[in-house]
Amino acid sequence: MENRLNSSLLEKAVADLSKLPGIGRKTALRLALHLLRKEPEEAVSLGNALIELRTKISYCSCCHNISEEETCQICSDPRRDRKIVCVVENIQDVLAVEATGSHKGLYHVLGGLISPLDGIGPSDIEIDSLVKRVENDKIKEVILALSPTIEGDTTNFYIFRKLSAFPVKITMLARGLSVGNELEYTDELTLGKSIQNRIPFQ
Amino acid sequence: MENRLNSSLLEKAVADLSKLPGIGRKTALRLALHLLRKEPEEAVSLGNALIELRTKISYCSCCHNISEEETCQICSDPRRDRKIVCVVENIQDVLAVEATGSHKGLYHVLGGLISPLDGIGPSDIEIDSLVKRVENDKIKEVILALSPTIEGDTTNFYIFRKLSAFPVKITMLARGLSVGNELEYTDELTLGKSIQNRIPFQ
Repeated sequence: MENRLNSSLLEKAVADLSKLPGIGRKTALRLALHLLRKEPEEAVSLGNALIELRTKISYCSCCHNISEEETCQICSDPRRDRKIVCVVENIQDVLAVEATGSHKGLYHVLGGLISPLDGIGPSDIEIDSLVKRVENDKIKEVILALSPTIEGDTTNFYIFRKLSAFPVKITMLARGLSVGNELEYTDELTLGKSIQNRIPFQ
Repeated sequence: MENRLNSSLLEKAVADLSKLPGIGRKTALRLALHLLRKEPEEAVSLGNALIELRTKISYCSCCHNISEEETCQICSDPRRDRKIVCVVENIQDVLAVEATGSHKGLYHVLGGLISPLDGIGPSDIEIDSLVKRVENDKIKEVILALSPTIEGDTTNFYIFRKLSAFPVKITMLARGLSVGNELEYTDELTLGKSIQNRIPFQ
């Protein structure tokens, strides 16, 4: 089915859908034909939702999370602890941490990690704005919640150095055994760290 | 990540995307965040393509294939044989037959198969219009290209009876071994049919 479709509208929809990640031409055709069978309202609603998503959404001036207002819902929520800031790589990570319900403070979305191989330096991500925030808002604790990768560790260390001039407690996510994983199949680095960082039995 | 997202625009896009077949909430979120990272033009193009697909596309008055005009590109192509009509269940099947390049005639899209269990009778699909077409256009051959299922066979037989009054040759797709399949693993019904309908060695 690699040939052109006999309708340019269908062809355009299939071509645009198949630009999405993980969606090939066959899946795109299946989705387009599904929409053709449904009520027009459904396709119009989806189409407008995608357009509005990209054109109306902006970023919170404080934490750089996505937002429809100047400041996002989390930053403007009076019940959240404004003195604790959780530093994450991207929006998905905000959602992941929020889903745990374990963080009652605010966020700071870096928009990437320092990665010299990819040409991403400290000035390409939101580190300066984090330092300003810590200084101006008298932040008490910064939780570094970056992925346990080389890029994550590099970024953690850079932020740690930048913030060492301020009276702020800097913590990072615990590294150790994943809940539900078997000890036998845990990689040696993780197992080693979890022995070094062993915690009192509660 | 089953909790509500902190942006109603993102929530709406994710909710609408996850109505598509085979796309769950996590995939929908991944697609939405992908669009957020891309140029606005890409999301606008996709959104408009989906809206126009559903609102501007219509069906060919002759063969009921999708079309942007009164008659579709295939029906209005002067190089195609107007006396041979291939009867298919739906639009996907038109694409599948077209992809083979083996059919140079026109199509007739039934829009379904007779299926009493699903409450679909002969009057719910485009059989009457096929009979009229055969009569008015002096069709010479009708190729029944329906799936080899009970519903397909029922529909084949119904069409055969309806057309028996006209001087039209009625053929159906050959049934036999799939190219590349091993004999040992071919089901007995198919193998039996392929012995009964054996063809001269060429």
